[in-house]
Amino acid sequence: MSLNNFKLSLREIIFGTEPGPGRNFDIALIIIIISSVIALFLDSVEPLHAAYGDIFYAAELAFTVMFSIEYLARIYCSEDRRRYITSFYGIIDLLATLPTYLALIVPGAQHLLVIRIFRVLRIFRVFKLFKYMSEANILLRSIRSARHKITVFFITVVTLVIVFGSLMYLIEGPQRGFTSLPQSIYWAIVTVTTVGYGDIVPQSPFGRSIAALAMITSYAIIAIPTGILSAELMQENQRQASRKQCPSCRERGHERDASFCKYCGGALP
Amino acid sequence: MSLNNFKLSLREIIFGTEPGPGRNFDIALIIIIISSVIALFLDSVEPLHAAYGDIFYAAELAFTVMFSIEYLARIYCSEDRRRYITSFYGIIDLLATLPTYLALIVPGAQHLLVIRIFRVLRIFRVFKLFKYMSEANILLRSIRSARHKITVFFITVVTLVIVFGSLMYLIEGPQRGFTSLPQSIYWAIVTVTTVGYGDIVPQSPFGRSIAALAMITSYAIIAIPTGILSAELMQENQRQASRKQCPSCRERGHERDASFCKYCGGALP
Amino acid sequence: MSLNNFKLSLREIIFGTEPGPGRNFDIALIIIIISSVIALFLDSVEPLHAAYGDIFYAAELAFTVMFSIEYLARIYCSEDRRRYITSFYGIIDLLATLPTYLALIVPGAQHLLVIRIFRVLRIFRVFKLFKYMSEANILLRSIRSARHKITVFFITVVTLVIVFGSLMYLIEGPQRGFTSLPQSIYWAIVTVTTVGYGDIVPQSPFGRSIAALAMITSYAIIAIPTGILSAELMQENQRQASRKQCPSCRERGHERDASFCKYCGGALP
Amino acid sequence: MSLNNFKLSLREIIFGTEPGPGRNFDIALIIIIISSVIALFLDSVEPLHAAYGDIFYAAELAFTVMFSIEYLARIYCSEDRRRYITSFYGIIDLLATLPTYLALIVPGAQHLLVIRIFRVLRIFRVFKLFKYMSEANILLRSIRSARHKITVFFITVVTLVIVFGSLMYLIEGPQRGFTSLPQSIYWAIVTVTTVGYGDIVPQSPFGRSIAALAMITSYAIIAIPTGILSAELMQENQRQASRKQCPSCRERGHERDASFCKYCGGALP
Repeated sequence: MSLNNFKLSLREIIFGTEPGPGRNFDIALIIIIISSVIALFLDSVEPLHAAYGDIFYAAELAFTVMFSIEYLARIYCSEDRRRYITSFYGIIDLLATLPTYLALIVPGAQHLLVIRIFRVLRIFRVFKLFKYMSEANILLRSIRSARHKITVFFITVVTLVIVFGSLMYLIEGPQRGFTSLPQSIYWAIVTVTTVGYGDIVPQSPFGRSIAALAMITSYAIIAIPTGILSAELMQENQRQASRKQCPSCRERGHERDASFCKYCGGALP
Repeated sequence: MSLNNFKLSLREIIFGTEPGPGRNFDIALIIIIISSVIALFLDSVEPLHAAYGDIFYAAELAFTVMFSIEYLARIYCSEDRRRYITSFYGIIDLLATLPTYLALIVPGAQHLLVIRIFRVLRIFRVFKLFKYMSEANILLRSIRSARHKITVFFITVVTLVIVFGSLMYLIEGPQRGFTSLPQSIYWAIVTVTTVGYGDIVPQSPFGRSIAALAMITSYAIIAIPTGILSAELMQENQRQASRKQCPSCRERGHERDASFCKYCGGALP
Repeated sequence: MSLNNFKLSLREIIFGTEPGPGRNFDIALIIIIISSVIALFLDSVEPLHAAYGDIFYAAELAFTVMFSIEYLARIYCSEDRRRYITSFYGIIDLLATLPTYLALIVPGAQHLLVIRIFRVLRIFRVFKLFKYMSEANILLRSIRSARHKITVFFITVVTLVIVFGSLMYLIEGPQRGFTSLPQSIYWAIVTVTTVGYGDIVPQSPFGRSIAALAMITSYAIIAIPTGILSAELMQENQRQASRKQCPSCRERGHERDASFCKYCGGALP
Repeated sequence: MSLNNFKLSLREIIFGTEPGPGRNFDIALIIIIISSVIALFLDSVEPLHAAYGDIFYAAELAFTVMFSIEYLARIYCSEDRRRYITSFYGIIDLLATLPTYLALIVPGAQHLLVIRIFRVLRIFRVFKLFKYMSEANILLRSIRSARHKITVFFITVVTLVIVFGSLMYLIEGPQRGFTSLPQSIYWAIVTVTTVGYGDIVPQSPFGRSIAALAMITSYAIIAIPTGILSAELMQENQRQASRKQCPSCRERGHERDASFCKYCGGALP
């Protein structure tokens, strides 16, 4: 087999997603990626690390060597090397191996291997889950077309959080847990987002009144992003509907999943 | 009475929902089911168990014997036995008695009797609450038609939760409660869903900054499923409206609960 | 002044809301009601009760005597006594005085005086805030027309809460805070509604996994009532729009707050 | 240079936002404002205050002197002095310097300097972010047109919070953390808004049942403001669409961001 042929069939196996060697390689890869992430998770649990730490370390090394070889093979056989290396997957593929080497110098760096989880996103391309990608695009388009409104919302939230945080710092003060302005703003974020850990809580009657005001405000404000997105998605749905046109009666406004015209019954494209 | 006639009238009583013996049997059954679940609840409260444990155990045995006899009678008199046994209610009816027998071998198994609560869902069939079932269907249809968008949303949440969880594990570390990667991801889920127990909280300034970022992200992200469902339910409403057509003036677009045409006043089907 | 005339002018003062004695009486009444509720609130604070308990008790007696006289006067001068006594305000007016008398027999009953706060709702009638009442009616109508969907949602939540609560009782058990089935269901409600007090939390890895599942489920489920109400309010807006018709060009579909036809510019009714 | 010319060019620099001295001045100002707020934040952290307190104090004095001079210069060169002084920015500009002088008399007043953050809002004017301001206006218009519904919602929440708070005060009582009516109402707000700190929690079975009821109620009620705003924003979008008319074919209903008629392809205004 000539070297060129070898490169071509390697490319088919590694980059291809057609049933046969291409897809089998991808399925095996996804299984290996998930295994390596699970190993990472289990290794982080202290009792398991104490008992099987060596096995996990060996597994990690093995996974890293495999991923490194795969990365080099991808560079070797890709049509446009520069494009692959600078693509989203190219960068993730590199970052998925680096931490192990880095850990030889900086201990603890191996935890960054969690980045491997992003390699699993390949699953959408492998199984041709285009439907999901098109729906994700609709969501992204709605968010993008509402970006100015969402920015205004975030500026409002940030202003509120700074105002309420500063007020509480003045009212409650360091001796009741509000030790600094950043700390108070952290409290305000925990409260306004309704997370409410309870590690820092107002204790004076006046502080509690202001906190109650902050909560009720946040209760109403949470309606803003939801309302924005509801209206935007609704419009996106209508936009998709109005784009579809019946070839027989020329009527528009058919729903996204309609196959026949709702006015004349003619087949829709 | 011939054996066949007995079977037929038994079927009428057990499976029938018409006013008379059929409905009376069902009402009695629902009362018994609810009583058995209440007994189960009370028995799980330690002081009550200590005082009346024997009575509760006797009641549980009596309920189980009754439900077992009912289950066998249902099999005996059902038109299509295989279909009943493999149906949703058939499986629930069986599972509602098994744990008591299982508890003779595995102590504690009787708590699984809570599954009996599902037998109460029969109430919809007995009282012909078709309205509720049709509305439940609209909800289910909306959720189903938005399933791709919802899946995309869940993948985003899972990715966010893994990223934020891993980051916090690196930043806060085991000595501040983030003892392992799964534990950190549990923290991330508690935070992103705005539950916020407060059993694990970030303590370093940097950890708190990342946590604040996670909260604000989750605050915006909660808008996505709501927006999706609002738009979908809106469209479902319009779809139902456009389906209804006036037989006199041929106008469409009547609302779901309209009885007369809003243009010509003719009766709607 | 004849007795009949006295009754009539008393009715004008007590029940009337026109500028003059009628409105002045109502304004004075609302100020007195709010004062009595504030006194109640302050009296419940221990240090204030210790210092001024006697004054608060005297005030409470005075308020009760005043409200009792007012109640009797209302009965005396109302056009239809039975109707007033059995009306919403009639019952609230009675309940607003009873606890003080009851407290002579049952100590602590005076806290029920908080019911007086409902008397303030009179404010809508006094200041003719009809706009608010019509908007409240739109909200109520939307909720009523979505009541079947909301019921289905609540049945789903109740089922989920029972299932997750029972599961956690089996997994975590009494020694980790999940002391009984009702307690576990309380935990499930606290978690699914994203309140998350943190007084009862799962501690085993398996319990935490199930809890994480419950949280993510609740995160998605919260979208259902919001979606339902958004779609319903949207439709209500459109319904109001389609009801309005231009008298000149006969076109429909004008917005709720439009004063002129958007097609021909004619004045709208 | 004549005094008048000096005033004019000063006005150009300070109030102007054109590229050149006007914009450069504004950019420098925004950087200084943000620096002064960061200094304020860092100074509030105890270890940093102990180490660099003097530097922060000097910086604060310098910032205050600069802002004071700027404020006086703005008054001096503004076209309409009274209008500037009484405008939003005029008041903020004054309040951004006062606390330092106030702190000479009342210690601690310098924390009020946080108000400086509002000076940053100038950024919208400087960079001509009109798009954001128009979107903010759409949001505000939607909120304003829904203000009656939102008021009804808030009255409902306040009533609920008072009722649930009072009930819990009667049930749980002072010895279980519900020490007074205001305290119980604070608990009710923390619970109904789903913040859930966990510093005050019900402990009796009956108290927990009522709390569970409050949570489930709040879970449904949070849907109301979101539904209101979704419907309102949706209508706002449609209103904007119906306003746009194609000059060639006279068709209406073009989307907000459309540049060409979707029916005839003619350019839209």
